[in-house]
Amino acid sequence: MKGSKVILNGKTLSIQDVNNVARNGALVEITEEAMRTVEASRALVYELANSDTPVYGFNRGVGLNKDREVVAKYYEEYNRNLIYAHCVAVEPEASEEDVRAILLARLNTLLLGCTGIQPAIVTMYKDMLNYRIHPVIPERGSIGEGDIACLSHIGLAMIGEGEVHYNGIRMTAKEALERASLKPIVLGPKDGLAIVSSNALAAGPGALVLKDIQDLIETADIIYALTLEGYRGNVTPLDPKAYEVRPLPGQAYSSQMVRAYLEGSYLWLPGVTDSLQDPLCLRGSCHLHGSVRDALDYVKKYMNIQLNSSDDNPCVLLDEKRIISCSNYEVTSLALGFEMIGIALSHLSRNSCHRTIKLGNARFTGLSRFLTPSDARVIAYGTIQKTFTSLDTEIRHLSNPATADYFSLAGDIEDHANNTPYVVKKTSKIVDNLRYILGIEAMHAAQAIDLRKATKLGKGTKAAYEVIREEIPFLDKDRNLSIDIKKAYNIIKSQELLERVREAISE
Amino acid sequence: MKGSKVILNGKTLSIQDVNNVARNGALVEITEEAMRTVEASRALVYELANSDTPVYGFNRGVGLNKDREVVAKYYEEYNRNLIYAHCVAVEPEASEEDVRAILLARLNTLLLGCTGIQPAIVTMYKDMLNYRIHPVIPERGSIGEGDIACLSHIGLAMIGEGEVHYNGIRMTAKEALERASLKPIVLGPKDGLAIVSSNALAAGPGALVLKDIQDLIETADIIYALTLEGYRGNVTPLDPKAYEVRPLPGQAYSSQMVRAYLEGSYLWLPGVTDSLQDPLCLRGSCHLHGSVRDALDYVKKYMNIQLNSSDDNPCVLLDEKRIISCSNYEVTSLALGFEMIGIALSHLSRNSCHRTIKLGNARFTGLSRFLTPSDARVIAYGTIQKTFTSLDTEIRHLSNPATADYFSLAGDIEDHANNTPYVVKKTSKIVDNLRYILGIEAMHAAQAIDLRKATKLGKGTKAAYEVIREEIPFLDKDRNLSIDIKKAYNIIKSQELLERVREAISE
Amino acid sequence: MKGSKVILNGKTLSIQDVNNVARNGALVEITEEAMRTVEASRALVYELANSDTPVYGFNRGVGLNKDREVVAKYYEEYNRNLIYAHCVAVEPEASEEDVRAILLARLNTLLLGCTGIQPAIVTMYKDMLNYRIHPVIPERGSIGEGDIACLSHIGLAMIGEGEVHYNGIRMTAKEALERASLKPIVLGPKDGLAIVSSNALAAGPGALVLKDIQDLIETADIIYALTLEGYRGNVTPLDPKAYEVRPLPGQAYSSQMVRAYLEGSYLWLPGVTDSLQDPLCLRGSCHLHGSVRDALDYVKKYMNIQLNSSDDNPCVLLDEKRIISCSNYEVTSLALGFEMIGIALSHLSRNSCHRTIKLGNARFTGLSRFLTPSDARVIAYGTIQKTFTSLDTEIRHLSNPATADYFSLAGDIEDHANNTPYVVKKTSKIVDNLRYILGIEAMHAAQAIDLRKATKLGKGTKAAYEVIREEIPFLDKDRNLSIDIKKAYNIIKSQELLERVREAISE
Amino acid sequence: MKGSKVILNGKTLSIQDVNNVARNGALVEITEEAMRTVEASRALVYELANSDTPVYGFNRGVGLNKDREVVAKYYEEYNRNLIYAHCVAVEPEASEEDVRAILLARLNTLLLGCTGIQPAIVTMYKDMLNYRIHPVIPERGSIGEGDIACLSHIGLAMIGEGEVHYNGIRMTAKEALERASLKPIVLGPKDGLAIVSSNALAAGPGALVLKDIQDLIETADIIYALTLEGYRGNVTPLDPKAYEVRPLPGQAYSSQMVRAYLEGSYLWLPGVTDSLQDPLCLRGSCHLHGSVRDALDYVKKYMNIQLNSSDDNPCVLLDEKRIISCSNYEVTSLALGFEMIGIALSHLSRNSCHRTIKLGNARFTGLSRFLTPSDARVIAYGTIQKTFTSLDTEIRHLSNPATADYFSLAGDIEDHANNTPYVVKKTSKIVDNLRYILGIEAMHAAQAIDLRKATKLGKGTKAAYEVIREEIPFLDKDRNLSIDIKKAYNIIKSQELLERVREAISE
Repeated sequence: MKGSKVILNGKTLSIQDVNNVARNGALVEITEEAMRTVEASRALVYELANSDTPVYGFNRGVGLNKDREVVAKYYEEYNRNLIYAHCVAVEPEASEEDVRAILLARLNTLLLGCTGIQPAIVTMYKDMLNYRIHPVIPERGSIGEGDIACLSHIGLAMIGEGEVHYNGIRMTAKEALERASLKPIVLGPKDGLAIVSSNALAAGPGALVLKDIQDLIETADIIYALTLEGYRGNVTPLDPKAYEVRPLPGQAYSSQMVRAYLEGSYLWLPGVTDSLQDPLCLRGSCHLHGSVRDALDYVKKYMNIQLNSSDDNPCVLLDEKRIISCSNYEVTSLALGFEMIGIALSHLSRNSCHRTIKLGNARFTGLSRFLTPSDARVIAYGTIQKTFTSLDTEIRHLSNPATADYFSLAGDIEDHANNTPYVVKKTSKIVDNLRYILGIEAMHAAQAIDLRKATKLGKGTKAAYEVIREEIPFLDKDRNLSIDIKKAYNIIKSQELLERVREAISE
Repeated sequence: MKGSKVILNGKTLSIQDVNNVARNGALVEITEEAMRTVEASRALVYELANSDTPVYGFNRGVGLNKDREVVAKYYEEYNRNLIYAHCVAVEPEASEEDVRAILLARLNTLLLGCTGIQPAIVTMYKDMLNYRIHPVIPERGSIGEGDIACLSHIGLAMIGEGEVHYNGIRMTAKEALERASLKPIVLGPKDGLAIVSSNALAAGPGALVLKDIQDLIETADIIYALTLEGYRGNVTPLDPKAYEVRPLPGQAYSSQMVRAYLEGSYLWLPGVTDSLQDPLCLRGSCHLHGSVRDALDYVKKYMNIQLNSSDDNPCVLLDEKRIISCSNYEVTSLALGFEMIGIALSHLSRNSCHRTIKLGNARFTGLSRFLTPSDARVIAYGTIQKTFTSLDTEIRHLSNPATADYFSLAGDIEDHANNTPYVVKKTSKIVDNLRYILGIEAMHAAQAIDLRKATKLGKGTKAAYEVIREEIPFLDKDRNLSIDIKKAYNIIKSQELLERVREAISE
Repeated sequence: MKGSKVILNGKTLSIQDVNNVARNGALVEITEEAMRTVEASRALVYELANSDTPVYGFNRGVGLNKDREVVAKYYEEYNRNLIYAHCVAVEPEASEEDVRAILLARLNTLLLGCTGIQPAIVTMYKDMLNYRIHPVIPERGSIGEGDIACLSHIGLAMIGEGEVHYNGIRMTAKEALERASLKPIVLGPKDGLAIVSSNALAAGPGALVLKDIQDLIETADIIYALTLEGYRGNVTPLDPKAYEVRPLPGQAYSSQMVRAYLEGSYLWLPGVTDSLQDPLCLRGSCHLHGSVRDALDYVKKYMNIQLNSSDDNPCVLLDEKRIISCSNYEVTSLALGFEMIGIALSHLSRNSCHRTIKLGNARFTGLSRFLTPSDARVIAYGTIQKTFTSLDTEIRHLSNPATADYFSLAGDIEDHANNTPYVVKKTSKIVDNLRYILGIEAMHAAQAIDLRKATKLGKGTKAAYEVIREEIPFLDKDRNLSIDIKKAYNIIKSQELLERVREAISE
Repeated sequence: MKGSKVILNGKTLSIQDVNNVARNGALVEITEEAMRTVEASRALVYELANSDTPVYGFNRGVGLNKDREVVAKYYEEYNRNLIYAHCVAVEPEASEEDVRAILLARLNTLLLGCTGIQPAIVTMYKDMLNYRIHPVIPERGSIGEGDIACLSHIGLAMIGEGEVHYNGIRMTAKEALERASLKPIVLGPKDGLAIVSSNALAAGPGALVLKDIQDLIETADIIYALTLEGYRGNVTPLDPKAYEVRPLPGQAYSSQMVRAYLEGSYLWLPGVTDSLQDPLCLRGSCHLHGSVRDALDYVKKYMNIQLNSSDDNPCVLLDEKRIISCSNYEVTSLALGFEMIGIALSHLSRNSCHRTIKLGNARFTGLSRFLTPSDARVIAYGTIQKTFTSLDTEIRHLSNPATADYFSLAGDIEDHANNTPYVVKKTSKIVDNLRYILGIEAMHAAQAIDLRKATKLGKGTKAAYEVIREEIPFLDKDRNLSIDIKKAYNIIKSQELLERVREAISE
């Protein structure tokens, strides 16, 4: 997928595409038809403005200033000032990955022709992506009805001011544009508003977070399967029939995957497990992972709409030759979905924690206390319980909602907000904490498998076990576990675990 | 709909059906085929138990006691004790409406034949509904993996112990069964577990809450439309094209309804509104109501699965002649959906509050301060702002998640929970607060319409205005507004507003 | 204490006094000096108003209407309208206990002479308390900068409108005043504001909640001591020296009380406990109860200030013959304290839950599973774990803060609030849930003591054990435990447990 | 204060001392008496261990392993392993400032002689501070009953393993010790536990946060005073008498300071302000800042106890020649205090936001919209409202409690936690956000002062105004405001504003 090209037309951008462009360096290309739409939209805007129709952000101001006329000779100055006055975001700076995702998310929706932006700016978005000119964007400051406080910093770079990363090196935008032989944009009417007024800060990085969650659930399924082998868990709850009588889509899928990972495992041998029913954290994992999957599907649906429809206000209607005022900058559905998925992940986290605690409990596993290789001499996985549970406590805290806490602003005109960028950000922190938590579970599972001398592992779990053991050897004596934890985290974050297991089960 | 009959077969129970049976006194009937399934399932259970297969809750104990054998001669005693030991719920008592919903939700899933319960108990559920024998169920005590602590109280009534309401009169279960000429149940194997182990406490009342939310959004759409008329709001944001370029299903629907309510309104006359763009609370209401609709659709989907599939563990598989252990009591998807919708309603609430505040603001409406009929002599709607915002503060508080806060119980076997009944309950409180908040908005809207002397109202809003004015006269001087607020609440809760408006627009 | 009289002078009202008047029917009396202060204050207000100084709420309107002049001949009408327009509160109605506490809290601060209210109204507060005329006050609607939306309903009753409870019977205020031979108040200048503008809804019921928390911690200490005996817990952590090296006041006190309760217990006998260290829930209870005590002391300090100082705005300064505008209606310190104590109680709750879970765990107690008297035949305290942990989940939810969620109201003049009444209310729900949770722990402790045949109990714990066993017999077979739980709750709520134990240790 | 020396004796360490050592490079010295106590304590531990008394963490294991004997010849190995096994913390790494605070907090409590640690380790803490050898400590992983997962990394460095910063350069601990001519520690009995088992991760950085909050409130008082001048606010609410009738300590102090800052201001001139009462955000700021001060005093009290008393378990009692098991690692009071202060700061934040919004509102200030210097050409402070309110939304989110969310760990022995380090951390994030929020208010206040041409400023506010204007010129045309915001933040964070104002009012 790396190095591949993503073709944009405003209608077919996928979460996977965002990931490829943002993280894997894929180039972007705009279809000719889309560019023609952009041009037609621009022409219409001029046509209407000349006919004296008042157009918000074009020949009228924005926000509370919507009552102020902007006359043609001040278009450039007005729009430059608009960019300046909207540069109000604060640290930290968005990662370059996120900046790419933002540029892409905005670029794609411009292609629908609802914005009326000048075509050269559209091309600039594409060039910035393809030349790797990444404007420095402080990421805090948006309340989510359009991420105007942050996206303005892109406009700043486009007119050759502010700073960017160019091929990874920080420099002034002016220098980067020169080096890449690109001309700074001269802003025309509505261009300022067109650049700042979009939810791309929520949409781009949000799409990456959804990609990460998708991977995380898959990882969680794998590690759960590995834990079953470490624990010598009862596989009865994986019975496909159980999922037929209760047709929740997500859990059916998770259970199918877990069965695939465990194909060929010793767990399926008769008489292996004698407990009638394991603890719920082991018995219900597919159900819980399924609940996260269901929630994710919901958010993905709304993200796909966001990535491929206009959130412009005003909105240019090419076919009707009208510009209408609307509220299409509203992304509350997206914020709600992310809030739900944060709570869902909090369940997934607690579930993993309980499985890990159980793996350390000799009474349940029949193995040693804290999976020590030597009761007398090695302390092993005791204190580490504080690590993953403290990370879970953070997740619980992050899972509190933040979307509905806002002020009435701009002279009481802007009396709604949804804080979607912050909601996305906190979700992304939840995901990162989960990489540690699942990583520690994986460490436990591998240790339990070793202590149990379980050799006949499943098709997928065997691959998982091997990935772990390549990096983290069996704990034969006490050592600095922070190092092991970091390695486990990296195996997950780098997708090494995922890729190796995917490969194994597809053989 | 009242007095109608609902036919049950385990597969087609709708939220509307639950509402009809629980609140409108509809009778229930079980299909013959379903009863045959129940009987077959019971027969299979006996067959397997006699073959010495260990069956959780049948010839083995439940929970941590799952390792304990239960021999046949103690079936009755064991199951009675099980009912007793599970009677641990605490006040308040569930309303009779909720009790009916609970009985119905459990009855319907029994018909799938996955339980193995004795057929006489199935009939008893039906009789209790049709004879209006409503066991007293303390409603707190469930953590949501099966509402065993509460549903046990139904079992108590079925064996002729504890208390019930019979045709609205409280009496002992014994007396009620006698009066209705019903025989108390003699419990057999697995019957205790079959009665207690279900999520009916979440499902039944949860379905009613979803019905209420459905009505509430419709009400919110109506009152928003009325506010537009009181405010003389700009109707541009209702333009259908705006919703075409951004295909979020809920907001398209809401905007369509609002247009229908406003059909024929003076707001559509040329030149009526001069503001280029109204405050967001007025401009984005359809979008926000749409977000709630989208969230609601998600929860309804999972509620329909819950109402029509087995959550039994163990689960009887008639076609395969097996009983399997599973985790089908997991209802986390449902809990997550309710959490999301609570947050969504918190947005809706704040939106309504802001609209009402705007209606009281002379600068925005061009009317008098606090909609007073006389600046000099009448204070009018000033302090009332504290009422609805304080109710909103409660909603914000209730919208905090509660589903993932649980303990590890039963000797660390039950280390997951989802608290679905509590999540449903807090959602229901949010809904009730919203009836006040929307009611107060309606009072403001009607007052603004009167002050504005706006006579040409929409088809639906005219009906809404009339319903309000029939109960609450124009505020011509200060009076005890608590009384008006309660009336406005009643108009909404009783569905009078809804029904009259539905009728009006369907003419 | 019942039937005693509380003398009021504005400066010495204690939380205990509030409890006596509100719940034990104590009468109130106003000192002569205080009444003279009230009269002087009223005279000053007239003097200033005649001199044309603008006085908020006197010869000027309130809230956003503060720019409106009120002329003398409309004083009565204006103030009556003010009462009407502030009657905007909604259900539920405050309990009669709470109403008494509210009346008392307001009455006492009036005596400081900062209000300028007419003396007859002061007397009316006293009469309402002494004649048991309790205005019906809907308790929701205040955002806490003065509880104006609710206290207005007192004013309504004073002018002979609205409803009251008179000696427990609901009737119109008019009738009650007649029956008690009291004349309705004729409102004069500033009287309306004086009645509504106070934080008495937070202060009165808040004081009762603090009284309840005080009792609850004492109860928790007792039940913890009982649990130690049921568990055969290690008493080493009670060593007074441990509390000397770490001088946190609350924990020193709790540990001293627990030692007193356990005086003479078998636990102090050599060799009784063999575990080097018990689980933290048993080892650290005094520390945790101490943390609650410390937090409580903080809140009590601010409550005492609230009960005995003026929160009037404007504020009459008798000695300087001035009326000043101020923000003394701010009670945020109080709200913060209640928020903290809610979180503190959430810790106490979880601690009790863990102790109870441990009592049901044979591995820790050496007794039977779930404290059953017969492993084979009685299920005992298994499912009940769901009851107390679900109540804890509610407490966790209630412990989320609500004080800082408010709107900007009254034309953006009232842009701060603290929601103190709601914060008090949710704290009171936490307290009530804890009565169940501690009650269930007490049931477990007594059962464990019986199973252990521990006969030599402590001086205080023996009394506690006896109170419990008088109401709730040993669980020799399964029975409806909801009944037992309610009894345990009642023992705590009625203070029977507290009183008997206090008596026992004071002998 | 910089470069000064702090003398340690275990009993008199102040928050100010922690700040000096951690941030200003002050050296530390241990009193001779204190070292003698340390030596005596060590001797006692050996004496008791030789007498075969079981001592937790000495000749017995820790946590669930407390039943395991540790024999003398394995002391070194056992303690090294203990350090290894406790090295389980994860990123991010604590700042060097925080590491110094941690070292100091632990060092001081060691001097009380309750630990029994070997004296060479005590000296090593001192040397690490004085030589600036700062162990790398990953800061996440503690649940707050002793920060064992993190403090272990100090032990690692002391034995010459892991990494440190030495004079700001990262290197191996081995190399740093060599360069500083220090010998690695050879661990003896109990040393491992003594190093890890302390709450220094909460106490040290927590003390720094309290110092920051202290400064922040002072800053808030100053900026509020400046805002009053920008707004031309009514100074009536500063009347000292208002604070006499309601003796809340914090607000009395804040109002006194604000009066001092405004000494000589034009605001005191007769006739300057004509509004009878300003919005609450302006009227009640001293009250609100006072509430934060009151809350801070509470936490400081418990922090001082924490810094100067033993939190060891077991605890060596020198005078009684005993070692007792206890729960002195409990720091829940501290956690509760931090939770309260977080909520208090959330109020302060919202208050500042509302003041800033008011400054941008022409209707309230009589100045231009968004404080623009030119209505026609400059947009000015419009979008910036999103910046500070989005930061407030984060604060609201952070203010949710986290202290009571924990698991039951270590074989159900460790069933309580308080998460104090995380609670401290989130409080520190709140503080940092507030620096931006107050900084933006200061920008507004200065702009309003300029637009109003208010020349006669107060003694303190004049200094504040000048500090701001030295860095941030008057906004005469639109510019990149992110740069201005960062400058405003820096003025506050660097304490430049504070110091200049302190100087000014003390002249």
